[in-house]
Amino acid sequence: MGGDNAPQSVVAGVRLAVERNIPVALVGHPEQIAACEDATDIASEVVVIVASEVIGMGAEAASSVRKLKDSSLVRAAEAVRDGRASAMVSAGNTGAAMAASLLKMGRIRGVSRPAIATPIVVPGRRWPNVMLDAGANSECSADWLVQFAQMGAIYCRDRWGVEVPRVGLLSNGEEAGKGSSLAKQAFGLLQDETWQKRTRASFAGNVEGSNLLEDVVDVIVTDGFTGNVALKTAEGVARQLIGALLQAFDSSNEARAGARLLSRALAPLYEEFSPDSVGGAILLGVRGVSIISHGASSPQALANAIQVAHELAECDTVGSLRQVLSPE
Amino acid sequence: MGGDNAPQSVVAGVRLAVERNIPVALVGHPEQIAACEDATDIASEVVVIVASEVIGMGAEAASSVRKLKDSSLVRAAEAVRDGRASAMVSAGNTGAAMAASLLKMGRIRGVSRPAIATPIVVPGRRWPNVMLDAGANSECSADWLVQFAQMGAIYCRDRWGVEVPRVGLLSNGEEAGKGSSLAKQAFGLLQDETWQKRTRASFAGNVEGSNLLEDVVDVIVTDGFTGNVALKTAEGVARQLIGALLQAFDSSNEARAGARLLSRALAPLYEEFSPDSVGGAILLGVRGVSIISHGASSPQALANAIQVAHELAECDTVGSLRQVLSPE
Repeated sequence: MGGDNAPQSVVAGVRLAVERNIPVALVGHPEQIAACEDATDIASEVVVIVASEVIGMGAEAASSVRKLKDSSLVRAAEAVRDGRASAMVSAGNTGAAMAASLLKMGRIRGVSRPAIATPIVVPGRRWPNVMLDAGANSECSADWLVQFAQMGAIYCRDRWGVEVPRVGLLSNGEEAGKGSSLAKQAFGLLQDETWQKRTRASFAGNVEGSNLLEDVVDVIVTDGFTGNVALKTAEGVARQLIGALLQAFDSSNEARAGARLLSRALAPLYEEFSPDSVGGAILLGVRGVSIISHGASSPQALANAIQVAHELAECDTVGSLRQVLSPE
Repeated sequence: MGGDNAPQSVVAGVRLAVERNIPVALVGHPEQIAACEDATDIASEVVVIVASEVIGMGAEAASSVRKLKDSSLVRAAEAVRDGRASAMVSAGNTGAAMAASLLKMGRIRGVSRPAIATPIVVPGRRWPNVMLDAGANSECSADWLVQFAQMGAIYCRDRWGVEVPRVGLLSNGEEAGKGSSLAKQAFGLLQDETWQKRTRASFAGNVEGSNLLEDVVDVIVTDGFTGNVALKTAEGVARQLIGALLQAFDSSNEARAGARLLSRALAPLYEEFSPDSVGGAILLGVRGVSIISHGASSPQALANAIQVAHELAECDTVGSLRQVLSPE
């Protein structure tokens, strides 16, 4: 029920996922789902888990999750908790999806705080950089950042097959001495080889904002405040530059003719920088796979998110996280 | 003596400034300056303040400033302190320029910490957003952020004529309750009307990373850690997107033909997003005008920086800062 133009767009995405032979359960209003264009075609393939309420995109997260017990987000998280679903995907209210996952699935034993891991495209590389925390925890302690490093590395390996992920710490300079007191403290803890061996990851030192889209590391750890600012800055600059370009491309007949000639050269670029190609964010550290897609996700993007959820459930990423993070 | 291809590029920039009738003193090696291409043309117009040492671009800032007493950066800051110059401009080591300014000029009375204010282009608007602190203080307290707001607003008015600058607080969400504990505390202090009246500025609440290049506020305050990450993220994304575009433009004969047709439409865009158009950063809060330009500044960019320094000295920005920030 979440996301722009839901449930229509969600059902369209599920249809694409079903065509890829991924089993899907839809959580929401049965009538509203049935009224969607693609619903009849997938009716025999898809289970509907009934939920009568919806948490709005702008609603306050924690209180909504507590109050709207029959909302699709809460019911979806419960389905994962109860084993009726192996993973959950939402294009709805990010904060509420996070709160519902945390509240209903619970934390993995040993994890201090779950974190949002967001893929950031690295032009020319098969896999993106994973940045976490991208906004779940505005205030962090240094040892949480070590756990973020562990979770990010395991996710990076499970999802993209990077054998020994390199972890960088986001800071205001590459030198070891640079950083806020949190970053400096985290730097010290991240240098310790115990976690690196246990996680099969390596610490590559500080990275700067300018390295976000570069092939310098595979995982970037930071607190949720800085991570959110960096992510939104990157998205904002890209959106404004591309917007200005598109305007210039359409500013005269001459420009339009030029843009037509360039379309073939620009198509792969569009593909590469499109948010659809890297997919949604994931909440790492809860006892279940919980993927949080953009509200504006296309059916294609949603189908990709569902496929990722499917794959992460199949390879038991939560089990890998537990193995490394839960005390014996 | 600082910056890529110095002193050649600096002397070329000074030549352009002299042509605009701005009186300039060059600080550095007399022989190396005299050996520059444009040196003879400006010899009669320009005073040379002798400095025998140079602080390298990669040198450790504070210790270099202490040790290299006859360096061009230290001598330039002393010239401002002693009234032999009205302002200082450097394209050299940023940290050292900052340290030299702070150590030799001293802080304005009442200012807790000087901050680096960086202009960020706002497409379609005559003036940029001013973000501070962009990196001088990795760790800040909430009351410093209020001073940053005051200094940024005064600078914005003096330089771009914005009568009542709107100040935004960089945070991980627009809502009032969002933020790290520092941001939340600063939010509370910034809401107070006393500083707003005293500074002739208004507090517009939280802004997000996505607002950096937008016409939502005029001044963006944050701690130097977050500001540095945001700034470098913005620069990095822009550089990578533009790099990818230029590569696509040159990827085939067809693409090259298209790019030629588009050149007229793209020229103003290039102009708008070019770092030369907004100019260098300024260190606010010291007892003198100290402008810090990119190491890669073109002669044109340097001449602009010199002109800005000239104008800020003429309108006595340091006096305006003192009037608002120094206790009576």
